Formats: sequence, structure tokens, C-alpha cells
Amino acid sequence: MKAFINEIKENDNIDSLFLVKEKYSGMTKTGNAYLKLKLADRSGEMEGRIWTSVEVFAESFEKDDFVHVIGKSVSFQEHLQLNINHIERVDEEKILYSDFFPTSEKNREEMFQSLVEISREIKNPHLNQLLQLFWEDPAFIERFKMAPASKWLHHNYLGGLLEHTLSLVQLVLKNATHYNGINLDLLLTASILHDVGKVDELSYHRSFDYSDEGRLIGHIILGIERVEDKIRQLPDFPKDLSTLLKHLLLSHHGQYIWGSPKKPMTLEAVMLHYFDDMDAKINGIQQFIKQRLPDGSRWSPYHRAFEQFFYIPNRSKKMELSENIDKNEFEEE
Amino acid sequence: MKAFINEIKENDNIDSLFLVKEKYSGMTKTGNAYLKLKLADRSGEMEGRIWTSVEVFAESFEKDDFVHVIGKSVSFQEHLQLNINHIERVDEEKILYSDFFPTSEKNREEMFQSLVEISREIKNPHLNQLLQLFWEDPAFIERFKMAPASKWLHHNYLGGLLEHTLSLVQLVLKNATHYNGINLDLLLTASILHDVGKVDELSYHRSFDYSDEGRLIGHIILGIERVEDKIRQLPDFPKDLSTLLKHLLLSHHGQYIWGSPKKPMTLEAVMLHYFDDMDAKINGIQQFIKQRLPDGSRWSPYHRAFEQFFYIPNRSKKMELSENIDKNEFEEE
Amino acid sequence: MKAFINEIKENDNIDSLFLVKEKYSGMTKTGNAYLKLKLADRSGEMEGRIWTSVEVFAESFEKDDFVHVIGKSVSFQEHLQLNINHIERVDEEKILYSDFFPTSEKNREEMFQSLVEISREIKNPHLNQLLQLFWEDPAFIERFKMAPASKWLHHNYLGGLLEHTLSLVQLVLKNATHYNGINLDLLLTASILHDVGKVDELSYHRSFDYSDEGRLIGHIILGIERVEDKIRQLPDFPKDLSTLLKHLLLSHHGQYIWGSPKKPMTLEAVMLHYFDDMDAKINGIQQFIKQRLPDGSRWSPYHRAFEQFFYIPNRSKKMELSENIDKNEFEEE
Amino acid sequence: MKAFINEIKENDNIDSLFLVKEKYSGMTKTGNAYLKLKLADRSGEMEGRIWTSVEVFAESFEKDDFVHVIGKSVSFQEHLQLNINHIERVDEEKILYSDFFPTSEKNREEMFQSLVEISREIKNPHLNQLLQLFWEDPAFIERFKMAPASKWLHHNYLGGLLEHTLSLVQLVLKNATHYNGINLDLLLTASILHDVGKVDELSYHRSFDYSDEGRLIGHIILGIERVEDKIRQLPDFPKDLSTLLKHLLLSHHGQYIWGSPKKPMTLEAVMLHYFDDMDAKINGIQQFIKQRLPDGSRWSPYHRAFEQFFYIPNRSKKMELSENIDKNEFEEE
Amino acid sequence: MKAFINEIKENDNIDSLFLVKEKYSGMTKTGNAYLKLKLADRSGEMEGRIWTSVEVFAESFEKDDFVHVIGKSVSFQEHLQLNINHIERVDEEKILYSDFFPTSEKNREEMFQSLVEISREIKNPHLNQLLQLFWEDPAFIERFKMAPASKWLHHNYLGGLLEHTLSLVQLVLKNATHYNGINLDLLLTASILHDVGKVDELSYHRSFDYSDEGRLIGHIILGIERVEDKIRQLPDFPKDLSTLLKHLLLSHHGQYIWGSPKKPMTLEAVMLHYFDDMDAKINGIQQFIKQRLPDGSRWSPYHRAFEQFFYIPNRSKKMELSENIDKNEFEEE
Amino acid sequence: MKAFINEIKENDNIDSLFLVKEKYSGMTKTGNAYLKLKLADRSGEMEGRIWTSVEVFAESFEKDDFVHVIGKSVSFQEHLQLNINHIERVDEEKILYSDFFPTSEKNREEMFQSLVEISREIKNPHLNQLLQLFWEDPAFIERFKMAPASKWLHHNYLGGLLEHTLSLVQLVLKNATHYNGINLDLLLTASILHDVGKVDELSYHRSFDYSDEGRLIGHIILGIERVEDKIRQLPDFPKDLSTLLKHLLLSHHGQYIWGSPKKPMTLEAVMLHYFDDMDAKINGIQQFIKQRLPDGSRWSPYHRAFEQFFYIPNRSKKMELSENIDKNEFEEE
Repeated sequence: MKAFINEIKENDNIDSLFLVKEKYSGMTKTGNAYLKLKLADRSGEMEGRIWTSVEVFAESFEKDDFVHVIGKSVSFQEHLQLNINHIERVDEEKILYSDFFPTSEKNREEMFQSLVEISREIKNPHLNQLLQLFWEDPAFIERFKMAPASKWLHHNYLGGLLEHTLSLVQLVLKNATHYNGINLDLLLTASILHDVGKVDELSYHRSFDYSDEGRLIGHIILGIERVEDKIRQLPDFPKDLSTLLKHLLLSHHGQYIWGSPKKPMTLEAVMLHYFDDMDAKINGIQQFIKQRLPDGSRWSPYHRAFEQFFYIPNRSKKMELSENIDKNEFEEE
Repeated sequence: MKAFINEIKENDNIDSLFLVKEKYSGMTKTGNAYLKLKLADRSGEMEGRIWTSVEVFAESFEKDDFVHVIGKSVSFQEHLQLNINHIERVDEEKILYSDFFPTSEKNREEMFQSLVEISREIKNPHLNQLLQLFWEDPAFIERFKMAPASKWLHHNYLGGLLEHTLSLVQLVLKNATHYNGINLDLLLTASILHDVGKVDELSYHRSFDYSDEGRLIGHIILGIERVEDKIRQLPDFPKDLSTLLKHLLLSHHGQYIWGSPKKPMTLEAVMLHYFDDMDAKINGIQQFIKQRLPDGSRWSPYHRAFEQFFYIPNRSKKMELSENIDKNEFEEE
Repeated sequence: MKAFINEIKENDNIDSLFLVKEKYSGMTKTGNAYLKLKLADRSGEMEGRIWTSVEVFAESFEKDDFVHVIGKSVSFQEHLQLNINHIERVDEEKILYSDFFPTSEKNREEMFQSLVEISREIKNPHLNQLLQLFWEDPAFIERFKMAPASKWLHHNYLGGLLEHTLSLVQLVLKNATHYNGINLDLLLTASILHDVGKVDELSYHRSFDYSDEGRLIGHIILGIERVEDKIRQLPDFPKDLSTLLKHLLLSHHGQYIWGSPKKPMTLEAVMLHYFDDMDAKINGIQQFIKQRLPDGSRWSPYHRAFEQFFYIPNRSKKMELSENIDKNEFEEE
Repeated sequence: MKAFINEIKENDNIDSLFLVKEKYSGMTKTGNAYLKLKLADRSGEMEGRIWTSVEVFAESFEKDDFVHVIGKSVSFQEHLQLNINHIERVDEEKILYSDFFPTSEKNREEMFQSLVEISREIKNPHLNQLLQLFWEDPAFIERFKMAPASKWLHHNYLGGLLEHTLSLVQLVLKNATHYNGINLDLLLTASILHDVGKVDELSYHRSFDYSDEGRLIGHIILGIERVEDKIRQLPDFPKDLSTLLKHLLLSHHGQYIWGSPKKPMTLEAVMLHYFDDMDAKINGIQQFIKQRLPDGSRWSPYHRAFEQFFYIPNRSKKMELSENIDKNEFEEE
Repeated sequence: MKAFINEIKENDNIDSLFLVKEKYSGMTKTGNAYLKLKLADRSGEMEGRIWTSVEVFAESFEKDDFVHVIGKSVSFQEHLQLNINHIERVDEEKILYSDFFPTSEKNREEMFQSLVEISREIKNPHLNQLLQLFWEDPAFIERFKMAPASKWLHHNYLGGLLEHTLSLVQLVLKNATHYNGINLDLLLTASILHDVGKVDELSYHRSFDYSDEGRLIGHIILGIERVEDKIRQLPDFPKDLSTLLKHLLLSHHGQYIWGSPKKPMTLEAVMLHYFDDMDAKINGIQQFIKQRLPDGSRWSPYHRAFEQFFYIPNRSKKMELSENIDKNEFEEE
Repeated sequence: MKAFINEIKENDNIDSLFLVKEKYSGMTKTGNAYLKLKLADRSGEMEGRIWTSVEVFAESFEKDDFVHVIGKSVSFQEHLQLNINHIERVDEEKILYSDFFPTSEKNREEMFQSLVEISREIKNPHLNQLLQLFWEDPAFIERFKMAPASKWLHHNYLGGLLEHTLSLVQLVLKNATHYNGINLDLLLTASILHDVGKVDELSYHRSFDYSDEGRLIGHIILGIERVEDKIRQLPDFPKDLSTLLKHLLLSHHGQYIWGSPKKPMTLEAVMLHYFDDMDAKINGIQQFIKQRLPDGSRWSPYHRAFEQFFYIPNRSKKMELSENIDKNEFEEE
């Protein structure tokens, strides 16, 4: 069973998997070689030292490997560190990614099935076929289920891209009939595909960061390319429909300054932008509060990207002044 | 029955009501006095002339009066004008505002009843009572049902404020359970009240314009004052709840630059801003296209406030390329 | 007599009042309980330790209390700390706020009386009465005399709000006749009241910070509400005058981007904005230089809010090159 | 005596001076040559025609000349025009500029003497001498007394630069002792000299426009050059003082975006900027209202440079509700 | 031979080709049908009327056709119009586009050959092959030689895209060795391809305007797609090289606000942006001056997109003051 | 020979020159005086201690002196420090500035001669003479050869101003004939002089920083003054030419927001701005990468002034996939 770093106490015997984030060779004053490691899992980081069989162990794993570690935690200069007796490389297939990275609280398989089912309801045959092509692409699906939606701003966890996409699609379904004249098939398809370029933009198998082409090209254009690749397999796909779909993807950031080379020019593009932006922002605020709210405070720290503070009202107590209030009213649903 | 100006043809005998927008005295070359009027209704404007009994008629009405006119349309220098035989002032109660100003296509009384019913579902007793006080204020209700939501940007017609408010409330109802932790009662109440200051900001009994206090104070603060007036009648209204409610009203424009003195700092405030902004923008685009789309064009003129063009896809024809497409797919729902 | 923290030396015997900013329980290696405190006054902060009667003392005061302390300063790891023999809570009425917080160098009572006298000269009876209502409100007066004008940007000390208000009023008096067409009564009244919302926006009894309603509503709207509360007691107060007065308060920040929901639209509003902005900025620069100028430097550090450096000319020496210069010329007046 | 164009009526016999703004040769259908002129004075423009002695008159004056005209006003196609019997060029020295261009309502000679007297009070000998050099430069003085302060934004009339400069100096005198640490001599000198570059930036002998070097270099740098020219004649002028003085001139627009290559970095520079900006803005608003306020309106048209409307309260009537108000209270002083 | 509209005089007999920009049917007061046309060529527009054989002619051509017209110019209400005796549709292949639209002054075929030759010098085989694929695409070449570079801002004439591309490539060649570390092959290739999307973005066979996909997708992304289409035919094309090339195309506008979804992140991308921007701006200024400089003025009108005026120095006269100046010095080379 | 700080190892005997950046007196626990120094050269900083003859040595040099030091490096608390046996002040003439400050890699004398030669080719006699006056001013030349072009943004090393100026001039020479209508003499002269004010703006004899007049006036205006000083010695220098030259200097930053009080209004001014901006940016990126690129990374850290990351492609390996590629293709030239 996984021993999580933030739960390890002094003198615990440890037998668990970790990710090696750093690996250095050292020499004690008495001239003995040792290895100094930085081990990590989703709960934190911890130093590890190997004092014995150093040469053998040094050959057997590298930085960025997952490893099986047997050892004991000891206190050194007011910090815990792990004295390692045995270490060996573990194949990636044998680990649980969610032990090592923050992960969506929702079931990724269920979320994915929901998306697939919704996409089957799309009546326009071209858009329907286009989406099927994505669902028949196992390499895409694997990445699509795993990718976060952003390095840190919102849905910054494994499965975050999928969670954000499904949330957006559900918002679209709830609101699509609110206004006349909306092409629901187009809007749904664009919602499902709006961020597919993020599977290429972000790397997330060791830490969340941007790939080279992510930084140089960006998920908007990378997404357009993935969509183009599929459309090319559909010779009857109407040119106008392709142009409209690509316009929705290109313009979904809403403004030049936010990286969209076009502003939303159709009603569907306008709606897509609002729902995408709102969903990202609300999740971003929720994550920020969850991770950064000071104890006992109702005020978040300053959020640099949003350039403001956020406030968390005390719902259960302060507002309830009379007998006949439903006690659950202010609780989270 | 109302004769609408844009339907009057040469030599029509006219017996109908109009609004006097301008009134000048003139003198013919032969030294006879006459009156020159600009008459208006919701369909346009037309010149009128009074050649007989000028002195008597001149006393009987003023600029900005509604008048009953009997006369005949004649052609003069390539324009139609109305030769008036009889004219008299008509009391405002006897006219139908919707004959004279653009008016919401939806039933204002029904929209208002929907709002009242929704507000009865609010469980928090303080917020529920607050809304009831508004519904018990007939002077407010009369203005609230009549006011446009803006001079020209969106919902710029009689009943527009009510239509926008109801649309926003329905969006909130559709989406409120989408995110955890939203105080629905607070969000609904703020949605209903967010623009009540517009009943004071705009004047709309002769043309749509800003009132003096509208320009000097603005609907956000005028709305806060109306809410404060009601809260003062509810001595048990919790201070915290009042602060939160006012924060939602103050911040609903989302940015300083759009006139909000505070940015949205709670989840409810963030949601209110997005839905309000989207609803105004979509209606604004729809009105702009309806009124300004050039014949045969898919491109709107340049929209100065939004700084862009808008595109109206040809849904029924261009995209349908294969037999098995549902023909109604791209039609407006 | 107050022993100020920045004047305490090693081995001083201390018998003085302090503010408890932090309070923690600890345990020595030998298993004895002790208390670790952070003590503060206006001159700085200092650590304190209680080694005896720990349980009794621990019950007798809390964080944020003012306390009477008897003890001795000792050196520990290159820092002074206070070994406390006796400590007890002191009622807030018995302390001098100016011992604990930075305080205006001017006499607050005299400044307040100057304001009251100036307000008596206002001829417009409505505005005169309005101000009298503020002067008859002891709860307001107490806060108004104590509040700083800002958390840190300018007049950031007890009495700062009063000092800034009086300075602004004096500027208005000096300049009001400079331009034709200025309504002096209106401008004076607005100057006196322009920042009254700050008594609610800021909390300053333990440290300078924003209150919840300060952050959620802001001093501009909170000030409008205080003015409205008083005007409601004056049934004959003209609506137009109230609108103009509120416009001056709302627009005194001058720009949307600085938090004013309206730009100044009357000559009085324009003047109020310029004088308020100048007075805040000059005091802000003076405070910044006073607190942050590096030794021997004529250049201030970078001021983040103003986005620039400031320069302090060497007035007495460098410029004086010839005999006949009045030696006092460049001295501060 | 000057016959002003806006007072000329049909069939008046005219014998007066005008400025020739345009001059064209024409040919009647019957083959006779004539001259068509646009004549102007400060009150407006009017067409003139010369039907006789055309060749002689055509040689005797040019566009942009001042001319003495004898003729008669006649009505032609609903406009008045002047049938000219005699016309001849008049030397510029013989005309009154104020007949032809808008002119300050204040006495230019008196304003100039006030400035000279104030400058004599400056105790710093270098600054005092510097100003004297300006007052001993008759070519400068002539332009300084005549120049407007801007083409159209504020003080846009002959003598406007002088009026603005004196107003600024008086504001400085009224306020200089308000803050400690202000070098009054420096601030006064900079106030007097801050806009001297405008005598070169603007051309104003035929119409108000920018000179080539005005547009290419700008009054800020042109003013620096004029000041440098004088300082070069004062070999003992301290370098530091010169740097500070130039800094005040360079930074008086306050922001890069307003054309200052440096922001104000000393207290004197900050004050100069605020008073200069306020004086320009208030005069700009007053001129705008004077020239552009629609009849019967309290609202100015939209001011493009300031991006807003302005409001002119009805002081004498609306606000006076009770007996004991001093009737002069709201009148302009 | 082409009769250009701006050279047609009253009573000229016309036998020439024109473009029909508008076509309306009318009815004279006496009940006879006629056709009213707007005819155009590169020199201007002119009205035409057909009074005879109206029904026959009406069937024989449409708006936006090129037509052969025989008729006579007559004067009507102070304007010339063409009384048409004979009109017939002409196939597009038979007309000279440069008769109808502004055209580059440079030889388009020669410019194209220069580009092709330069592209042959590229040593990197992948980039060399990529460019060859473009040169083997006749449909592309035809459009590439014809397209303007913009609707109106710069190189706004037939062949403008080609002229701008060649100019940019020559700038790159002149400067590429100026800095170390520049990949010249990559930079040249990107320069040649940077605006190829404009062949799809703009429509220019009847007037210069944006195509639907031009407005909805934009030339940057359309260019990326054209490049992708070719790269797909080169299976060995390295992924990294493709990413870098696309980055240069995507970022060549330099800033988000100018429509680039990425800022230039490599030295080549930075250089491409500067040269492209400079070339567009200088041509834009030159075109603006050529078309809009007022007679006798050295100052251009205000340029709205660049937000400034431009100045054209008088090189031959004003600056030459001494004998020994080379007289050709200030002439245009 | 110079011992560079970043090459000193434990127990090295040191006999070399250093710059004293800090100098403090201390007292050991046993009551002995010592001196604690911070020594510096271009490679880094190091602590030094003087334990003997403290009083004598203390008198013999000051902070900011260059000193000759004899001593030994020892390890103290994991850092190296220098135990100094002998120290004495060294005259500035005896040191090599390039040992102490980062210095251009190019030969400063050769660069300067290149500039002088280019300036001799200028045909316009006024501009030619103006430049000669600069080359005849030894005080200017000394500073011009030494000054960096900026404190840190680009060419931030001794000789950087000269290197940047020559680079700009070479760019101008390469491109000046590319466009018609460019006055090459004017553009070259302005390129040579565009940043001469930096010899006064920056101080660089002990560290790179701004001088007082650099911050208060800025290099643009300081440069104008230096040019004015020289032009005053040339009585025949044409006024128009002077205005144009000064316009190029004033506007070379291109935008108000970048500190230019005028935008470039002539073709020469536009070109100067583009080449200056590009040269500064490319050098800035190169320096940033050279100093700050993390080991093994292709991505630079975030550049705060440019607000982005930069990417360094791996030219030699990744792109080369086929045999026939010239292996030197992607190497730096």
C-alpha cells in the first residue's frame, strides 16, 4: 500500500513506491560515496539517502523513474529523511498515476462515457462522424482522459481536461434552448473539441508543464490541426461547416489579448466563449480557495492572474437569524 | 385604428394618433401663418402642416403631446407630408405605448408574473420578504414593467428591462445546481434586483434617454438605494446578507472599466456577472442584426461598442449536402 | 511610562504596556510548558517568553489583548527577547492608541474643531444641517477622529482620515474663488464628506486592514450610505442637491479604473478630484520617503503603486553658489 | 468701425476690414471674369464677389491678406454675400488682431505685468536672473502675449497662453505653503516657463494651427531649448538647479502617454503637474460649454478628448427651497 | 483601347470595357423603362443609362459582369453620364485586370521569378522541397500573383502580396548575416510563406474585401493550413522543423493584440516580425501619402490606423544652403 | 596577472587587483579589531578579512577603491573567503576596466574607427561637419567608447553603446536603398547620434546605474542637448535640417509609452525606430540567454521586460534527418 509522504512520521518503516525527482552523487567527509534523492508523490516531497551498495543502486534507476523503496524515516537537522536499504525501478504500467499527481475527484471513465453518449445524439451526420473519429482513436483517448486542463490556473489535475470539457458540454445542454437561433449540434461539437489541443500542449507524465510545441504553437492551433486531421478523412464534410467549427475553436478565448486570433463572430461562438470562460474561472477560484485559503480566514490570498481577492461567506451561521429558515439553505448542495 | 407612418401612402385619408416631436410656426410668402410639425410613432417620423385655424390649433397642444390628427397625406418635393384638418391633444392614458415605441415581443404581464412566482420560491425569509416589498410597490412595478434595459445597446425597447431580468433569472435557475457551493437564494434575489436602478436611470416616456440622476449617479448605485430603502423596512434583515447582496449588485458589471466599483469576489457574484453579460450581449447582437443587417448580406455592419462584425450563417442551405440530414437541423428552434 | 520596543536594550528591566500579536504554547526539552509571545507597539515587535506560572498566565489574556508586562530583556541567539515575570490584560480604555499605532503628528482635536468651524460657515441651510447631523453623531465622530485614510498608500496613521480631510478642505478654501461659477458650499460639503465611508472600510483597532464590507462594498458606496442616512432625517433636503452631492462623492476618484463608477461631470466634481488626488499623492510620497529613503541616498526605492522613483533634492548645499542667496531659501518652510 | 460678419444684414452698406481666407477666379456664363472670396473675422465667414475692375483688384491682394472692403450685402440663394465695389490690402500693423481672432477677455498687458512683478519676488538669484532674461527679450514677449495655449482644447484664443500661465502661477502662490518642503522659487519659475515652447509650437497669425517644428518637436522640448538658450547666458547658473528646472518642464504633462518623457519625480514637479492639468481642464470645460451647450440643455455634447459629457446645474432656481437661503449663494461669483 | 473614366469628357464617343458595379431598372414619367448602371474601372466610377432595347439588354448581363459598352457621354445635372447604345457581357479572360483595379507598379512575373530563384538557394532539403511544392501548384500561383496584401492598409493593389513578400525576402537576405545564430533557411522560408493565407483571406476579383473564411479564420491560420497541406506530402519533413516554421508564421504579427496567438520566441521569429512590420508600415505610409496628401501640403491627413500625421520634407530646396552640396543628395534615389 | 574570483580555489595564494564594494569594521569576541570587505571583479564577488595591521590598512583605502591584495583563500562556513595580509589602493589608470566590468567582445577602438569612417562618407556638409565636431571632442569620445547602452536590458557592458551604435549604422547602410525617398545622410547621422545622451544618462565607473540627470532628464533629451551644443558652433546649419534631425532623435523610441515625446513622422524616423528597436531586442535576447539559460534547457527563464519566454532550437541534431543536408546549415555562422 502507498505510504504518502505527508503522512510519514519519524522512525516509520517504509515500503512503498515513489517518483525520483532529483538524484545526486555525494561523498562523505570520510570518503564514502552516497546517493541523495528527492522522492515525491502527490502529497509532497522528501529527501532520501542511500548509504550502502551505492554503486549497484546508482546504475539501477534514473531521475524521473518510479521506484520501489524499502527504508526507514529518520530525523536529520529538524527534517525527516528516508534512509534507503533497497531501491529498484518500477515500470510505469504498475503504478497508479493518481498516487503521484493530483487527480480529478470524479470518475474519469464515467465522464468519458457521458461525453461519448452526448456526442451520439448529434443529428448532423458530419459532426457526428467527426466526433466518432475521435472516439475511435485510442492514442487520443488515452491522452484525453489523462490530461489536465491547465498547468495551474484551473482543472490543474489529471482528468482535468475531461472534467472541464464535460462540464462545459453540460452547461451548453442546459442553456442551448434558452436563445433562438442557436445551432446546437455545432455548439456541442465545438464544446467537446474546444480544448483537444491541450493533449499536445501540456506534458503531465512527470510534472505539469508545457511541451515545446505547446509553447510555440499553443493548444488552439494544435486543436485545429487535430480537427483538420479528422475532417480530411471525411471527404463530404462541408467546407462552410468546417469553417464555422474552426471559427468556434479559434475564437473561444474571446479576445486577442487572451490568445484568440479572432473574436467570436457568431452566436454559437459567443456562447461557447462565455461558458468556457465561466467554467474555467469558477473551477480556478474553487481550486485556489481549496489549496490556499489561510486557516480561519474568509479571504483568499491575492490571486495574481485574476488580480483580486476572493471571499468565502460563512453560510451556516451568520446569516441565520430566525427560526423558520431551512437549515440546509446555505449549505453546499 | 392606428395608421403607422411607414405604411401611409400618397393621398391616404388619415385619422389616427401621433406623438408631436417638433412644432414650429411659419409664414407663407403670401403672409399666412402655418404650423409645421414632426409627427412620430414606433414605425417612423413624418412631417405635418396645418394651414387653417392655425391660431386655435396652436394653442391646443404642445411639443411632446400625443395628438389625434385628421388629415390627408400629400406628396411634396418627393416626400410625403400630412395636411392636417383637425388636431387635438389626447391624454396619455388613452394611448397604447406600444404604438409609439418599440416594445418587447413577449407579454409583459406574463413575464412579470413569472418573476413574482419565482421569487416566492426563495426560502431565505429575509430575501423572500425583501422581494415581496418590491412587489407591493405599485409605482415601482409600473416603471419596472415599462422600462427598457438600455438606451440602445441591448433590450432597447419597452419591457426590455423586465425581459432581460426574467431571462437572467431563468439562466440562473438552469445553472445554479451545476456548481457546488452556490447560494441559490442570494443569486436569484440579486438577479431579480440587479438592474432595478434602471427604472430611475432611463427616461422613456417620449424617447429613450438618460435621466439627470441616471447620468450623474448611474443605475448601479440607484439600484443599491432602492434596495436599501426596502431593507430599512425589514429590521431583522441580517447585516452580512445585506452586504453580500449589495456586493452582487455593485460588482455585476465585472470590471472597473465597465463601471463596477468592485470586482465580483464571491462565486455568486462571478456567476451573476457572466450570465448578465452574456444575456445582454446575445440580445444586443440579435437586435443589431435584426435592425442593421444589409439585404442579402451575411455580415453585419461594424458594431462600434463591440468593435467587431458579426456573421449570420446560412443554416438551411449551404451546409446540407447529404440526403440523410434532418432538414430541421439548422433551422432556428 | 511606555517603554518603546525599538529603545529596549539588553538587561533592561521592563514595566510597560504592549499589544499581544501572537501567543503560542511550547514545551522545553525538559518537559516544562512555556508561553511564546509576539509583543508589539508603534515602534516595532519583540519576542517574549513566560517560564513561570504558565498555566495561570495563559488563561489571563488572549492574542490581540493589550497587556501590562513586567520582565527583563535578555539576549538570545543574537536577538533581544523579554523574559516575563508578570503579565495581565489591560482594558482598552486605559491605553493610549498613539503608543501602539503610528499617529498623525497634528492635534486631532484641533483638526476636528477646525472642520466643525468651517462647516458652520456654509450658507446653504440644507448642506449646513446635513453636516451638523454628522457632528451630532458621537459614534461617527469617535471613528472619524481615529481612522487612517488608507491601509498604506497615504495618511496611513491614526487620525490620517481627519488630517487628509482638513487638508483637502483648506485647499478648497484657498482655491474656490479662483474660478468663476463654483458652488463653494457644495464643494466644501463634499470635501468634508468625501471619504467618510472609510470609517467603515478600514479596521484599525489592532492593525490597519480592510473590513469585510470595506472590501465587498468600498468606502465610496459606504460613504454614500452614511450621507443618505443623514439626508433621510432632513425631509426638505432638495432632491437635486442630493444628486449633485452624491455625484461628487461617487466621482471623486476621477476614473473608472480607480474605482469611481462615474467620472466627474461638474466643475465642482472636477476640482474635488484634483485636490483629493494631489493631497493623497503628496502625502503618500512624503510618507514613503520618510519611511523608506535609503541612508545617504537622494533616490527613493521604486514605488510600486506609483510605478516610479522619487528624488529628494539637496536643497541647502548644492544649489547655493553665490553670496547673496538667502540662506533659508531652499530650506523647508 | 469694424462691421462683424455675424451682424451684417441684407442690403447693408459695408465699409470694413476683413481677412481673405480664400480667393478664386471665375467666369460667368456670359464670359465675364469675376473674383470669388471667402472673407472672415472673429465672428464668422462670408462670401464676397468682385464683378468690376476684376483684373486690377486681382493683382492688389492675396489669400491671407487683410483687406479694406467697400460693398453691399445681397441675398443670393438664401445666403448673404458681399458685392464688392472696392478692395485693397491693409498692412498688418493697422488691424486689431482681436477683431479677427477670439481673444482673452482679460487685459493682456495687465496680465503680463502681473507675471513680471511676481517674478521679481523670486529670491533665488539664478532663477530671478533667468526670468529677467525672458522679460528683456522683446521678440519673445510679443509672441508670449499673443499666443493661444492650444489649438482648441483649452485657452484657445489670443492671449490664452498668458492667461493660463498667470492662472497657474496664482494657483501656485495660493497653495505653495500648504505643504512643507516645497521650493517655491523653483516651482514659481517652472510655472512661468512651463509652456513657453508654445510660442513656437503654434502658429496663430492667420488661424490657429501647429507649426512644423511644433508637430515634429513639440512645445515641451522647444521650451527646454528656449530655457537653455537663456541659461547659457548665465555662466554661474548651477547645474543641479538647471537639471531640476528642466525636469519640471519635461514632466509637467505627468504621464508618458500625455507626451512627457519623464514622470514627475519631485514634490514640485508633482504639484506643477496637478495645477497645470486642473487649470487646463477647467478652462477647457468652460470654453466647451460656452461654445457648444445646446439651447435649453443642462448637458454638454460629448467631449471627445475628455470622453464624457458635462453637466451644468441650474443654480438659481431648483435648489432654493426655503426662505432663509442667501439668494446669491448659487450664483456665479 | 481602354477609355478611362477619369479621362472621359462631355460628348466623347465611348467604345470600351467597364465593370458593372450596380444595375437598377427604372421607369420614366412617361412610362418608358430604362436601366441605370454604375460603371467602374481603376480610375473611378460613372453613371450609365440605357434607354433603348431595354428588355433585351437587361437580360444580357448582370451586376459584377465586365461589359463592352458603346455610347456617348452627356452632361446631366452637372455630372457626366453615359448614354449607352450597345452593351454586352465580356468574358473575364478577355479583360486586363490592371485596367480595372490598382496594380503593382512592378512586373509581377519578374517578381515571382525572383522569389522562385531565391527559394532554390535554400540548402535545407525539407524547406527547399516544401517551397517547390508551392511553385508546382498552379492554382496557388495564380492567386499568389494577383492578390493584394491588404484591403487598404498597405500594398493594397493587385500584386501587392507578391511585392510585399519579395520586399521582405530581400530585407532578410540583406540582414540575415548581421546577427550570429540565425537559421537563414528557416527565416527565408517563413518570409516567403508568411502571408500565403492572404490568397484565401481576401477576395479581389470585383473589389478588395475579405472572404467569409478570411474574416472567420484569418490569413495566419489559413496560411498554416496551406503549409500543412504541403508538408503532409513530405513524409520525411522533421516534426521540429515544422513546429519552428509554424511558430514563425503564427507569431509574425508580434503581439496578441495584432492577432498573433503567440509572441515571437526565437531569434528568427523576432527578425521576421520586425521586417514584416516595417515593410508593411513604410509601404502603408507611402501609399497613404501618394493618395491622400493635400495639394501644397507637407503634412498628410490624420492616419486613423497609425493614429498620427506624417511629414514629407522638402528635400530639394529648403535644406540646400551652400554651394558644395551634391544637388542630388536629397532627391529620391 | 589577474586572479578572477570565480576561479579562486581553497588555499590559493592570491596576489591580484580587486574592487572594494563594501568595507566594514568588526570586533572579534576576544576584542580584536578586524576589517570585513566585499571584493569584486567582473567574474563575481568574494568576502575578504584583514586581521593584522588593521588600523593602518583601514586608513589606506575606501569603499569603491581599486586595491592590490595579497592573501590566501580559506574556507569558512562552506564559503571561500580571503585572509588578507597586505592591501593598498591602486590608481584607476593602472587597472584594466575590462577586468572589473563586463565588456564588449568586439574591439572598441576598431568599432570607433569604423563609425568615424562611415561618418566621413556623409555628403551633406552640415551633417558631415556636425559629426566631425563630435569626433573632435575627446571628453565625449572617451565616454562614448566606454558607456554601456543600458543598465541591464541590452548591450549592458562596457563598449555596449558603441557596439549598438555601430550595429545600427550597419543595418541602416545595408537597407537604406531598399526604399525610395530615404534621405540616407540624415538617417545615418541620426543613427550615429541617436543614443549619445546615454554617456550622460548612465554612470558606469563602479557599477552600471543611472546618473541623477539620467533619471530626471533622460538620454533622449540629454542627447538633443549635446547635438544642440554642437550645432550652435555651426552658424550655417539649416534650421529645417536641425528640426528633422532632432525629430529623429526624439521619436526613436517609437511610442509615447516608451518615452518618446513624439511618434516617428517621417520615413527616416520610422526606419530608425524599427532598426534601433530590433537591434536592442536581439542583443537583449542574446545576452539574456547567455547569462540565464538553465543547464540543459532550450527554454529561457521568463523575461520580465519582454513578458515572455524564449526558445533556443537545437540546430545541429534534431533537424538533420537526411544524408544530403549540409552539416553546417544549422550551425551559427
